[in-house]
Amino acid sequence: MTPEEKLREMGIELAEASSFHPAMAVGVVTGNLLYLSGTTPPNTPEQEWRGRVGETYSVEEGYQAARLCAIQQLAMAKSVLGDLGRVRRVVKVLGMVNCAPGFGEQPAVMHGFSELMHEVFGERGVHARSAVGLQGLPSNAPIEVETIFEIE
Amino acid sequence: MTPEEKLREMGIELAEASSFHPAMAVGVVTGNLLYLSGTTPPNTPEQEWRGRVGETYSVEEGYQAARLCAIQQLAMAKSVLGDLGRVRRVVKVLGMVNCAPGFGEQPAVMHGFSELMHEVFGERGVHARSAVGLQGLPSNAPIEVETIFEIE
Amino acid sequence: MTPEEKLREMGIELAEASSFHPAMAVGVVTGNLLYLSGTTPPNTPEQEWRGRVGETYSVEEGYQAARLCAIQQLAMAKSVLGDLGRVRRVVKVLGMVNCAPGFGEQPAVMHGFSELMHEVFGERGVHARSAVGLQGLPSNAPIEVETIFEIE
Repeated sequence: MTPEEKLREMGIELAEASSFHPAMAVGVVTGNLLYLSGTTPPNTPEQEWRGRVGETYSVEEGYQAARLCAIQQLAMAKSVLGDLGRVRRVVKVLGMVNCAPGFGEQPAVMHGFSELMHEVFGERGVHARSAVGLQGLPSNAPIEVETIFEIE
Repeated sequence: MTPEEKLREMGIELAEASSFHPAMAVGVVTGNLLYLSGTTPPNTPEQEWRGRVGETYSVEEGYQAARLCAIQQLAMAKSVLGDLGRVRRVVKVLGMVNCAPGFGEQPAVMHGFSELMHEVFGERGVHARSAVGLQGLPSNAPIEVETIFEIE
Repeated sequence: MTPEEKLREMGIELAEASSFHPAMAVGVVTGNLLYLSGTTPPNTPEQEWRGRVGETYSVEEGYQAARLCAIQQLAMAKSVLGDLGRVRRVVKVLGMVNCAPGFGEQPAVMHGFSELMHEVFGERGVHARSAVGLQGLPSNAPIEVETIFEIE
């Protein structure tokens, strides 16, 4: 099964991804690596993501936000690569959680990201990761994640 | 026009860059990648950069500090490479803004960095980026940025 | 002298390293690069590391915590590579210090990490680095560090 077929089976549709500034790219390919820009969970009319985990949001809500970041990173990878079948490995993930003072459950939040990558890519989705807590994020988003992929 | 000619045209002079600790390098080349150490805006007798954006500094002042970080990262790249003409691409930028609680305009601050790279390198200066908010930075600097370049 | 012999001479023993989640790896190799997951200082019955530097911990205690992170990253690298002699270069280090508001001595803390790498690998241990201050870390650890190595 291709990553796109797996996503369809999971009921996930990838949005179009584009850069919001002319000096920035959704992602840059160098050699066999794809470096993506960081992404926050997309806001929709039904759900605006603004606030800190451990304050505005619970760990479980943070997990859902992290999962949305994973879907958005896949949309960005697809917009650069054309085809997610070109992904050979999810290499490295930096998960940055906008969190309340004293909050220490960044890994439980970031599992929402990691588990989606694992579901979509199987063993090729197993990655190195750091999950850490930040003071603030763009538009007060609860989480931002950036990914490095190995591609063919 | 070479990057050095472009910088001259913009009236920008690159300082000498050196490491402040024997275990650390200004930058390390591996394969076709140059990883630079992070940099904060240089302090001068006229301007000491100490404080948070959204508190001590406005977004516009943060933008200027980010631009100074870009110039400093170019000075560091030049000290490693000898010649900025060896840069094939600005690949990935991590912009870390020392910010007040609730501050959410990290991207507007980091545009000061990104736009300078774009001016100097043109399309080769378009990069992947994350712009995030931190709790503290060395000597209470308002911003720190680290860059990965593809080189020849 | 090999890195393993040097560690033995320094009286340092590397623990077994393993991933705590099936979607995550201790480290991922891509081409000639090894990306490690971030690590916090290991807790023991004698020493639990919980708290912020500049508040719970002094700079000197943070330095010791950073040194323990370096030893743990070496344990992780060895578990991936089998043999630390395969390390050609410590390329890039991101040191994230869980710190009190206004704390600005992240570099002095991170020297504990950098100096150990320098001791073990000599010139090959000299690396690019950023040392920054975060709002929170997993289980309220005082520091988390992630490393990129060049390998053969």
